[in-house]
Amino acid sequence: MESSRLEAFSDGVLAIIITIMVLEFDAPEETTFTGLIAVLPVMLGYLVSFLYIGSYWNNHQHLFQGMKKVNGKVLWANLNFLFWLSLFPFFTKWLEGGTEAAPLAAYGVILLMCAVSSSYLRLCVMQANKTEKQEGKKLKAIISIVIYIVGVASSFSFPVIAILCYMFVPIMWLTLSHDK
Amino acid sequence: MESSRLEAFSDGVLAIIITIMVLEFDAPEETTFTGLIAVLPVMLGYLVSFLYIGSYWNNHQHLFQGMKKVNGKVLWANLNFLFWLSLFPFFTKWLEGGTEAAPLAAYGVILLMCAVSSSYLRLCVMQANKTEKQEGKKLKAIISIVIYIVGVASSFSFPVIAILCYMFVPIMWLTLSHDK
Amino acid sequence: MESSRLEAFSDGVLAIIITIMVLEFDAPEETTFTGLIAVLPVMLGYLVSFLYIGSYWNNHQHLFQGMKKVNGKVLWANLNFLFWLSLFPFFTKWLEGGTEAAPLAAYGVILLMCAVSSSYLRLCVMQANKTEKQEGKKLKAIISIVIYIVGVASSFSFPVIAILCYMFVPIMWLTLSHDK
Amino acid sequence: MESSRLEAFSDGVLAIIITIMVLEFDAPEETTFTGLIAVLPVMLGYLVSFLYIGSYWNNHQHLFQGMKKVNGKVLWANLNFLFWLSLFPFFTKWLEGGTEAAPLAAYGVILLMCAVSSSYLRLCVMQANKTEKQEGKKLKAIISIVIYIVGVASSFSFPVIAILCYMFVPIMWLTLSHDK
Repeated sequence: MESSRLEAFSDGVLAIIITIMVLEFDAPEETTFTGLIAVLPVMLGYLVSFLYIGSYWNNHQHLFQGMKKVNGKVLWANLNFLFWLSLFPFFTKWLEGGTEAAPLAAYGVILLMCAVSSSYLRLCVMQANKTEKQEGKKLKAIISIVIYIVGVASSFSFPVIAILCYMFVPIMWLTLSHDK
Repeated sequence: MESSRLEAFSDGVLAIIITIMVLEFDAPEETTFTGLIAVLPVMLGYLVSFLYIGSYWNNHQHLFQGMKKVNGKVLWANLNFLFWLSLFPFFTKWLEGGTEAAPLAAYGVILLMCAVSSSYLRLCVMQANKTEKQEGKKLKAIISIVIYIVGVASSFSFPVIAILCYMFVPIMWLTLSHDK
Repeated sequence: MESSRLEAFSDGVLAIIITIMVLEFDAPEETTFTGLIAVLPVMLGYLVSFLYIGSYWNNHQHLFQGMKKVNGKVLWANLNFLFWLSLFPFFTKWLEGGTEAAPLAAYGVILLMCAVSSSYLRLCVMQANKTEKQEGKKLKAIISIVIYIVGVASSFSFPVIAILCYMFVPIMWLTLSHDK
Repeated sequence: MESSRLEAFSDGVLAIIITIMVLEFDAPEETTFTGLIAVLPVMLGYLVSFLYIGSYWNNHQHLFQGMKKVNGKVLWANLNFLFWLSLFPFFTKWLEGGTEAAPLAAYGVILLMCAVSSSYLRLCVMQANKTEKQEGKKLKAIISIVIYIVGVASSFSFPVIAILCYMFVPIMWLTLSHDK
């Protein structure tokens, strides 16, 4: 089976998720700079989520670059991955209600599930194409998963550490990426 | 006529439907785990609808795989199919108001119309390409339609049976799929 | 210049417009069949707008089928056409507030501008490809434009005639289409 | 690396941004022509933002026309560009609250960041493809950036000049475009 429609469908879903998050925010009520400063933390949260979705899209298109064979398992692993990503806007928005234990831990669990389902998708694609490359990505995925678990655990007592964990991973992805 | 734009347009519509449903939900007002538990049934409803749209996308791309001839009848049968799918978010949201007879029966009727219009689309594509394959899909479609009718009928007196019917079909599709 | 990205972008915009209209509706508050009957006129309005956008997508893909040369004029004529189509959800929603003179006439003007800008796009594509085909479409476009003008004029005194005009055109397109 | 998915993803994001802005507006409450006149400034603002996004899409597809080589730097420069564009609907909506200093200056800063990130993307694509063409675009980009800075500075004392600056640029792009 060809991967072209899987790629087109995934591009559509990722494009919607990344664009739709900014729609969730209400424009500041006051038309003053104070009003603008009030939405800055929300903007920063949007930037972090944008970096996550952007990185996942980047990884997704790397993954299917040159590996065009897909089977039913890959299709469902991809839908599973998109399901967890589609929960991003919902939990990003909840986090804006306040960085308390529940929203912070929930956001971390979504990050964790995205990382796990992304790794599982990678595995399925490798199997379908009978290849073993992209080892560097595997290491980064494991480090990310460990950091997310630390983040979720920290949510209950040390919210600042959780926030730092969640912000560290996309920066690591950006700086350690050696795309050619 | 080539099917490439029909596929691109359908991918777009399905990507939007599947992603937009989660936007309909409001983030829990309380930033506590109690607030999270309160939205769990809604999340489960989203999961079921996600499985339905995902399965339909899966079927759609299987259908057009290797059958590239389309005519005006296929174009309109496809738009008809997309019309019924586009009502999914609306009736998913109504169901969240309460699993009473009216929303349950209406949800079942939408499921039924999706299944019927999907089968009709399959028929039109087969005719345009003068082929007779994919018999296995026909049987699953008939079983699904029967289960939906049982579900709609049960909505009035036995809501639990209706819910079980609606949840059974996508699980059947997932477990009986023999994609290669 | 190749038309592939113009087609992809237009597919995206049309897919969003056609899907997004249903999001504008609120699910009925009551979870009873009375609540469902109350939203039926809105559903009918959605069906009419869906038929319009579906027909325009159908025409659009017919237009670019086999005519792959585009220039700057075609690009801007296409953006102009998409602009008028993008106003559909807004004016469909206003119409739901009540079928009074202003919303009815405004809806008719949008229909008119869509038809005019669609014809202009056709003209630009023909010029860029130095061809003269699709005469049958020209006649249908002129008839549609006349009916829209009658519809807009009727809005002020005979709203029922305006509604019938707006519903007649997509039915004419559907029944007179001789796609092959 | 091929640019096909970068183009598809960007088309998706741009199609959503351009379509979604009109959803932000509420239909007029009154179903009279007075109600329609009340939303005219908002419609004009939508038209200006539509022209901006349309022009950027136009430039984007010109840029990748015939330059198919992309690397990691191009991918991230493209995501950076899409990030600034995705803030358009948010700041367009804020501007509707009133054309005071803060929203006007903020809108201008977004325009500025879009222009800067677009020029940076152009630079990265040129480097990846080892080419030096499209000098005319460079000049227009510099003029635009200067006008935006004048616009932002004017926001604080001369809002009318700021508005004229922001409306002048897309008209310049439209009239000076020499697409072939």
